Amino acid sequence: MPTDMTPDGKSAQSLAPLGPGATIGILGGGQLARMLTMAAHRLGLKTHIFCPDTESPAFEVTPHHTRAAYSDADALDRFARSVERVTYEFENIPVGAIAILEQHCPVMPGAKALAICQDRLAEKRFLSGLGLVVAPFLPVETMVDLNQARQRLAAPAILKTRRLGYDGKGQQHIGTDTESGAAIAALAGAGAVLEEFVDFDAEISIILARGTNGEMASYDPARNTHENHILATSTVPAGLPAHVSKMATRIAEKIATAFEYVGVLGVEFFLCGETLIVNEIAPRVHNSGHWTEAACAASQFEQHIRAVAGWPLADPVRHADAVMQNLIGDQVRAVAAGESVPGCKIHLYGKNEIRPGRKMGHLTRLTARAR
Amino acid sequence: MPTDMTPDGKSAQSLAPLGPGATIGILGGGQLARMLTMAAHRLGLKTHIFCPDTESPAFEVTPHHTRAAYSDADALDRFARSVERVTYEFENIPVGAIAILEQHCPVMPGAKALAICQDRLAEKRFLSGLGLVVAPFLPVETMVDLNQARQRLAAPAILKTRRLGYDGKGQQHIGTDTESGAAIAALAGAGAVLEEFVDFDAEISIILARGTNGEMASYDPARNTHENHILATSTVPAGLPAHVSKMATRIAEKIATAFEYVGVLGVEFFLCGETLIVNEIAPRVHNSGHWTEAACAASQFEQHIRAVAGWPLADPVRHADAVMQNLIGDQVRAVAAGESVPGCKIHLYGKNEIRPGRKMGHLTRLTARAR
Repeated sequence: MPTDMTPDGKSAQSLAPLGPGATIGILGGGQLARMLTMAAHRLGLKTHIFCPDTESPAFEVTPHHTRAAYSDADALDRFARSVERVTYEFENIPVGAIAILEQHCPVMPGAKALAICQDRLAEKRFLSGLGLVVAPFLPVETMVDLNQARQRLAAPAILKTRRLGYDGKGQQHIGTDTESGAAIAALAGAGAVLEEFVDFDAEISIILARGTNGEMASYDPARNTHENHILATSTVPAGLPAHVSKMATRIAEKIATAFEYVGVLGVEFFLCGETLIVNEIAPRVHNSGHWTEAACAASQFEQHIRAVAGWPLADPVRHADAVMQNLIGDQVRAVAAGESVPGCKIHLYGKNEIRPGRKMGHLTRLTARAR
Repeated sequence: MPTDMTPDGKSAQSLAPLGPGATIGILGGGQLARMLTMAAHRLGLKTHIFCPDTESPAFEVTPHHTRAAYSDADALDRFARSVERVTYEFENIPVGAIAILEQHCPVMPGAKALAICQDRLAEKRFLSGLGLVVAPFLPVETMVDLNQARQRLAAPAILKTRRLGYDGKGQQHIGTDTESGAAIAALAGAGAVLEEFVDFDAEISIILARGTNGEMASYDPARNTHENHILATSTVPAGLPAHVSKMATRIAEKIATAFEYVGVLGVEFFLCGETLIVNEIAPRVHNSGHWTEAACAASQFEQHIRAVAGWPLADPVRHADAVMQNLIGDQVRAVAAGESVPGCKIHLYGKNEIRPGRKMGHLTRLTARAR
């Protein structure tokens, strides 16, 4: 057996494009998996969702799902045998699960991107290693580390756990009067990174797709706003000078190429003057790319499915101007009860329970493209 | 029990809007049911598909389906009890099935539209009765009828079966040298209508939605082309004088109001000079409205779900120019194998078998809206 073949005979290196009606397995059953599934359906493909949660939004949009823990080797094994490829909607999949799946079936994007993006420290070192600008940072595990880091970095700073943080979870603001002991105690033994706070002029993001043959396609940059650490809006066009847009795209391409990436990658930047500081990378479709589904012929979800399927990428051309607004918690109520919002494309995630801070859906306001 | 209540207590007259997560039953499992389901999902609603065919495209996009015959009273009964409303993707549902469903659950659009649209003769008499222009027609059952009709109507003419015709099926061209006996024999006992052939300048259509409260919303007219009696393309804007567009919309509104219609209605016209001749009405979402899914904030599928749900209609505003092209039979091959078409939104129906004349998917070319 050649070394690039899995035991089931599916080649992980030289992949044939998926044929009509093929099934892509997706780890995770949230709104991203739901939207990936809908994009797969538009292309005549199927998905099979693997998720431990009973009420997974993606379970409602496909007849094929497995509800099981990511540690359930038998369930993972059966799942991998029922699909042609596996992808995931979030980066915190246990690496053990990926190893089991890869016995049967290619898993995309690759393990390299996943390993790095699961660990904020590895991610920042990786980005620095590529010569990209990141906020000054230092690793922190103990109170001694933290006190040393506070002396070397400017205040204020942010203490972020290395693993499992999202939407501001696992983050602490460290001001000049913050007590180091309490901050370390709040980590509960988790490793962390202290980062200098960046006083940015704008937050922008690039959504890029890379195919199995190395071709890349980027959407126009979005200008993002956050509220309570959660994405609130994405606006396109972002109103950036052309050379800044181009630079952001080149940086995202550099990251994707270094990862030998296959699929859609989200890169968030802070813009300070004309300097682009890479804030975070997400090895998956990204909330700040939801506008593509309304304003482009091919959405980020379609691009990801195309890449994973080994298909040519679509043209990321945009036919309208767009402002995407997340519907967080109670913000969804009127729309979920039937209200229409003139000029806005509505997308609800079918979540039964409204909770504060929970992403329930999004609106995209579309206007004829300025020429 | 008030007369407007079904035995299950669901009111057919004074309908409360559906709440989040409610389920709409759909009769028929083809691409229209598939796209209605995807639109329902975007609104956080569910669907349950009822269809006798094993390989129904809509079965693949929802976990809820019943495969049973439209004559299976028990299956219809269980289906109706599992949903809050019922709608349908095609007009040839046996009326007996509707009667069973209405015991438990409102069925929309109403029985009136369905009864008329199932019978080409009733439809033409209904349209004439509203004072609308239709092609001159006469009912035909026997060779005597046909010979008389041929004397009274100009040649050439089209002989169309009253029931179960679509995409040119059940139609015969009657020229001056056509043999009446053979034409009648080909009807195999089915009732028919002889219609004068209309030498039109253009074919256009209006897609209109009407809500439970009588509000109406129409999309911009589409200019359509057919090949082998099957819709080939729909182009928007249609390049019509404003007063012709307005007149077409007023005619569609007149029809929907007369039907006390709830849902999306398609009206096909022949344009001859400045005269609009109503060719056909479809009490459902319509192929010539597929472009709305790509070029409008709310698609015809969303409008239909909104109307059936008792929700306010969406603004039918269009943010881009569009040309929709059906992918018929072999035309789908390259796209189904992964080819991307720059600037085109792809929608495939997940049908396994390619057959000549079978609608396999569609493309919508989007361009920034001309101002």
